[in-house]
Amino acid sequence: MAETDHFLAVGVEAAKIAGDVIREGFHQTKSIEHKGLVDLVTETDKACEDLIFKHLKKTFPEHKFIGEETSAAFGTVELTDEPTWIADPLDGTTNFVHGFPFVCVSIGLTVNKVPIVGVVYNPILDELFTAIRGQGAFLNGTSIKASSQTELVKSILATEIGTKRDKQTIDETTGRINTLLYKVRSIRMSGSCAMNLCGIACGRLDMCYEHGFGGPWDVAAGAVIVEEAGGSVFDPSGGVFDITSRRIAASNGYLKDMFISAMKE
Amino acid sequence: MAETDHFLAVGVEAAKIAGDVIREGFHQTKSIEHKGLVDLVTETDKACEDLIFKHLKKTFPEHKFIGEETSAAFGTVELTDEPTWIADPLDGTTNFVHGFPFVCVSIGLTVNKVPIVGVVYNPILDELFTAIRGQGAFLNGTSIKASSQTELVKSILATEIGTKRDKQTIDETTGRINTLLYKVRSIRMSGSCAMNLCGIACGRLDMCYEHGFGGPWDVAAGAVIVEEAGGSVFDPSGGVFDITSRRIAASNGYLKDMFISAMKE
Repeated sequence: MAETDHFLAVGVEAAKIAGDVIREGFHQTKSIEHKGLVDLVTETDKACEDLIFKHLKKTFPEHKFIGEETSAAFGTVELTDEPTWIADPLDGTTNFVHGFPFVCVSIGLTVNKVPIVGVVYNPILDELFTAIRGQGAFLNGTSIKASSQTELVKSILATEIGTKRDKQTIDETTGRINTLLYKVRSIRMSGSCAMNLCGIACGRLDMCYEHGFGGPWDVAAGAVIVEEAGGSVFDPSGGVFDITSRRIAASNGYLKDMFISAMKE
Repeated sequence: MAETDHFLAVGVEAAKIAGDVIREGFHQTKSIEHKGLVDLVTETDKACEDLIFKHLKKTFPEHKFIGEETSAAFGTVELTDEPTWIADPLDGTTNFVHGFPFVCVSIGLTVNKVPIVGVVYNPILDELFTAIRGQGAFLNGTSIKASSQTELVKSILATEIGTKRDKQTIDETTGRINTLLYKVRSIRMSGSCAMNLCGIACGRLDMCYEHGFGGPWDVAAGAVIVEEAGGSVFDPSGGVFDITSRRIAASNGYLKDMFISAMKE
């Protein structure tokens, strides 16, 4: 087995272990009180991150690890050129709490700060998105491609409104939507950055952008999955995507320049 | 069998017959060219409406029928006090085209212009929402309830940006979102009005509103499903819901007044 195939196989195992815990919690969220619910979310997040890193460290003890929960507790470890697993144990926490089915585990592996393996697993919809750089992208083992749409006016855009609620952020957020509504067919907000990226990869969505999400764990896996499906990942300004910047845009292989121009207006 | 149970049973049969056609088309949309895609959508819409009404008319020849496709072709039949089946054969057409899994069949039965039976079937997620007035709401046969959330700031709001793209509509749409972002936890846009209503009914979403959707077929089934799950359906202005108005808002049983106040600001 090639080294990257091995990385992917173990990453998928880790995602499925965490996915089982998420699926169980998802169906519990309706029946518990609020205090219990907060605990459930925190516990599910932490338990999943522990399970993921424990499984990966067993096989790859020499690798580095960056996770959302560990970073929240101890500060984010600096991303180096070393092989680094970057995991969001539960992307779409608000969806998890409310029982909205866009939740997933996101696990990416970077080498020289570039994602080379990506795994996004939605245990509720039973969708496993995978990619190895240079080897294509897959949904449940079947090859996927970004859409072939070439016109903005026929395209679906996904975005999220984020968590900041100061006037400047809200005005910028709704101003951007106002501008883009003249250009695109429709907008979707699913509540999961990683699922939006996978939506681009399998052609459900044509473009997405997000400013100010949590960290590299939201995008490390999705970025390689989009690119391997023939899509593009870039900074919303049109510059090069920086995995540590908390800004991302993505599109199919045809709409990038039009989309960047539309966002700049 | 009580008369309403019989209405529901036949409505469910009709929804499942149409759902099978939608499921088949959904998985085809990725592999066909654009011209073929337009034909597929039109054909699927029409074929499903024909199948639904044919099935219903066989058992209830004396009832009235209002459907999206028939209305588009021949104008909307006036809603009377007679028992009237109101069907959207494929809610979420854009999602259907793009392969985004929020698509459904929506079938409602009104008597005295009030929905008394509702069936919403999403054949992709295999979710069947049903209600008979006075007898509760169900998802795949299991009783469902709207959420018990009492605080706007912890609530998820669903809305859609609609299809009109004139400056006044876009400014009103984004202005409303701007105002509401100060009040709610997050916003979802799924692309299906009927699925949003069912999301309220099963507690995935806490509130929704939509202005200027297609017609009564988008809401006839969802309205009774929400109310039977303990939620409220009303006009976004706070007035009484009018099934023919193309305006709807809904919430769980606790947030209605707060939500109306927030929308008025």
